[in-house]
Amino acid sequence: MKLKILVTNDDGFYAKGIKVLIDIMKDYGDVYVVAPDKSQSGQGHAITMTSPLRMKKVAEESGYVEYVANGTPVDCVKLGCKVVLNEDPDLIVSGINHGSNAAINVIYSGTMAAVFEGCISGIPSIGFSLTNWSLDADFSACETYIRQVVENVLEHGLPEGLCLNVNIPDLPKEEIKGIRVSRQGQGFWDERFDSRIDPRNVEYHWMTGEYRSRENGSDADEWALANGFVSVVPMQFDFTAYKHLQTINNWQWNETDKE
Amino acid sequence: MKLKILVTNDDGFYAKGIKVLIDIMKDYGDVYVVAPDKSQSGQGHAITMTSPLRMKKVAEESGYVEYVANGTPVDCVKLGCKVVLNEDPDLIVSGINHGSNAAINVIYSGTMAAVFEGCISGIPSIGFSLTNWSLDADFSACETYIRQVVENVLEHGLPEGLCLNVNIPDLPKEEIKGIRVSRQGQGFWDERFDSRIDPRNVEYHWMTGEYRSRENGSDADEWALANGFVSVVPMQFDFTAYKHLQTINNWQWNETDKE
Repeated sequence: MKLKILVTNDDGFYAKGIKVLIDIMKDYGDVYVVAPDKSQSGQGHAITMTSPLRMKKVAEESGYVEYVANGTPVDCVKLGCKVVLNEDPDLIVSGINHGSNAAINVIYSGTMAAVFEGCISGIPSIGFSLTNWSLDADFSACETYIRQVVENVLEHGLPEGLCLNVNIPDLPKEEIKGIRVSRQGQGFWDERFDSRIDPRNVEYHWMTGEYRSRENGSDADEWALANGFVSVVPMQFDFTAYKHLQTINNWQWNETDKE
Repeated sequence: MKLKILVTNDDGFYAKGIKVLIDIMKDYGDVYVVAPDKSQSGQGHAITMTSPLRMKKVAEESGYVEYVANGTPVDCVKLGCKVVLNEDPDLIVSGINHGSNAAINVIYSGTMAAVFEGCISGIPSIGFSLTNWSLDADFSACETYIRQVVENVLEHGLPEGLCLNVNIPDLPKEEIKGIRVSRQGQGFWDERFDSRIDPRNVEYHWMTGEYRSRENGSDADEWALANGFVSVVPMQFDFTAYKHLQTINNWQWNETDKE
């Protein structure tokens, strides 16, 4: 039986990154694409509950079908599993994102939200990103590493509740040093708002800003990327800060415990 | 110096839950509200980068100012810190959400996304939710527990990278047994799409479905809520699955390590 592979992204179905990913994935099974009809970058884990979702089949050939949807990347995963496939795929891949999803970027990322959504449903799910935001980025160095990660996941599976966030540095193939399994690095977006007055004399604000990396050791994804490595971060959707449970528990809670 | 407290939510500025929260927070400092101008429920950590943001001041009195914004809860936090306050507030509180943000609901929640956003910036941040989705939910049992949590956070502070997800069961005050510090429970949304044909003969899909709880021990937020307790889950935005780092590292990576 051929594998069923669901492919999505957040840059939209027309992005170069998803086309590269689709071509690679065709070697591993039947490919089902459900991708947003426009950019959904920065949509995080948003879902569409209060307006109707639409899908349109835009390509079909043997072992391949492609839909575009008017929703978020998470919507695309849900539509892919529940409407297009009507069952869980064997694998979900998302990307290749135009731009880094290392460090804190993961929390804003639609690409990685799709990966978490697959993971919540128990489906092996991987996100791929290249650290180049331009529309015509050169993805040629990505293939080797995508294949390594996909083949490892197909061979070993992924433990329950685990997904992978793979970031590839924007370097010529011969300058990439290999893969580093890493932790999520530390950094944040230092926003500025560019505030303007519209022709009707009403103020509006453009969100802008710069990414600031914090101190990151050699075990962080930011370090790997800055030093010519592909970072692979195993991720989970359990946000409990286990190491602080006891501290918070020790606070005075005036328990009226009636157990 | 009076504390500066930023208040937001995802149900919109007109929701009953945020009004209850605002009234309580006025006892602790100067209150700055930046809330969405419409429901942003299910918006997760979405941000608005490609369209302009607008804010409108809708109320102002001594120690209190209220803005509504055309963005997501995360946008509201960024606007609150960078445009309204032009500095970090001492505390961010989000909610009271109409509906549970326990277990996996946290990943879809705009209310909790605002909390994570504050936490990323190093601001003590707390999300409050009542497990009742109705617009006219009875929030009267919430006050005692909100005060307990807020007063503890003001007294002890929160360790860096830590925020709190507080869920309150929809019970009469006298039936609530107290606070349980808990871990994020396990569950998932089992979606169904209600697929219909519009008057132009084009198919569309409404996302619907049911929440399914998985097996949860007495340390989980779902257990606390089901057993009459308020759950307090310490949460972090580091999604690294540390316990699996070694497993993934042991995979065959065909390293071309050129270090």
